[in-house]
Amino acid sequence: MNKKPLILVTNDDGIFAPGIRCLVEVVQELGDIVVVAPELPQSGQSNALTLTVPLFLKESNQFEGIESYKCSGTPVDCVKLAKDHVTKGRKIDLVVSGVNHGSNASINIVYSGTVSAAMEGSLDGIPSIGFSYLDFSHEADMEHLKPYLKKIIQQVLEKGMGSTRLLNVNLPKTDHIKGIKVCRQAKARWIEKYDVRESPFGKTYFWLTGEFVNEDKGEDTDLWALQNDYISIVPSQHDLTHHTAMDEIQFFED
Amino acid sequence: MNKKPLILVTNDDGIFAPGIRCLVEVVQELGDIVVVAPELPQSGQSNALTLTVPLFLKESNQFEGIESYKCSGTPVDCVKLAKDHVTKGRKIDLVVSGVNHGSNASINIVYSGTVSAAMEGSLDGIPSIGFSYLDFSHEADMEHLKPYLKKIIQQVLEKGMGSTRLLNVNLPKTDHIKGIKVCRQAKARWIEKYDVRESPFGKTYFWLTGEFVNEDKGEDTDLWALQNDYISIVPSQHDLTHHTAMDEIQFFED
Repeated sequence: MNKKPLILVTNDDGIFAPGIRCLVEVVQELGDIVVVAPELPQSGQSNALTLTVPLFLKESNQFEGIESYKCSGTPVDCVKLAKDHVTKGRKIDLVVSGVNHGSNASINIVYSGTVSAAMEGSLDGIPSIGFSYLDFSHEADMEHLKPYLKKIIQQVLEKGMGSTRLLNVNLPKTDHIKGIKVCRQAKARWIEKYDVRESPFGKTYFWLTGEFVNEDKGEDTDLWALQNDYISIVPSQHDLTHHTAMDEIQFFED
Repeated sequence: MNKKPLILVTNDDGIFAPGIRCLVEVVQELGDIVVVAPELPQSGQSNALTLTVPLFLKESNQFEGIESYKCSGTPVDCVKLAKDHVTKGRKIDLVVSGVNHGSNASINIVYSGTVSAAMEGSLDGIPSIGFSYLDFSHEADMEHLKPYLKKIIQQVLEKGMGSTRLLNVNLPKTDHIKGIKVCRQAKARWIEKYDVRESPFGKTYFWLTGEFVNEDKGEDTDLWALQNDYISIVPSQHDLTHHTAMDEIQFFED
């Protein structure tokens, strides 16, 4: 019984993005690979589901010799379709999502399609990892990231990930990565600033822009690690309960 | 200084849904009200952001005498636009989202546009509440829910919500509500089952359906409360760190 692990690869930038090609190249020696990724970019889609229209799934020849599909839906749709339909009952051993073009550290995790796709795997107990690189450019060279991606994935396959099933991994934009830090999610937020314009037909419209504010001075956070040229790994989960507040709001029961 | 609180009302079923009308009717005596809600239904949109196309925002006369806007985007877009643009610098004191037509208890929270809209308020420290009713029908009578909604909102305005800034409130489908329970999020999951069909043009397409499985026997959960005819209030937050796993995965730093 030395069967290869089944590794599902997905992302949120779409099947044609360079980041998913980087990830496929890293994992292809590590197991049996199946790719199910969005046909079109799905940045900022969080855990969104496609409910009001049906999904389409087409075979793709994007990655030579690797079973690949492109999906009309969101990153989470891709993982759900993979679990129920594509893998035909064979258990997925690992979900890897990314490499995202841009940060998913700190509060960005709640908007991230990349990490949400990985979370969708983790909900079924599948070890799942979201990878993001702090460079938005689709021209960015990711070659130097590959040894780190491979090391992290191999460690997960060999040693697991403790009692979590979800890792949020961000990689700093530097040629001199100092190492890896296990971190907590930094407390930070976006102050939104909408760019307001008028269409040629007189309608007002809005583009979302914003300013990122880090309010967390801790040196154990993902933002600290990234600012200091470390890769950040935040073990993550989907229980949103604010456990310490439960006692404080007992007055609602009166 | 006995100024009325500014209350933002939003939802994910869209500005024409009966649930948001119920909520507006409850809060209109409790403060100055502004409504910013999606023009079209946005169920299952989670924390999704509109990034690749601009947003449109139009005044709406949906609620007589109440400043209201309909937005082309997601629930989170609505709250961001309200914070940055609609309220013109006046601080929002409370965000209420819903009443959603359908449950957002347990794992449903991660897909919920209703709760994500409330979370978006909480990220700026604004007390925020998502309300959901366990009846999908848009014909459902919500009149008997109003005293409970009003009581919860009044308590938040008077007593706050402890150290959390986000409440996930679900209301059971019963005419005999027994009371209110402060709960934790139950551990449950969806087993997805896609309905596979063929279009008239020979293309395969998929509709998401699924089976909800409660794996949590605890009597302190939202699912337990709802099954026993109580309203569930889960104090919630956006730190996804799996804190207890941090020590277990230190091997990544070697």
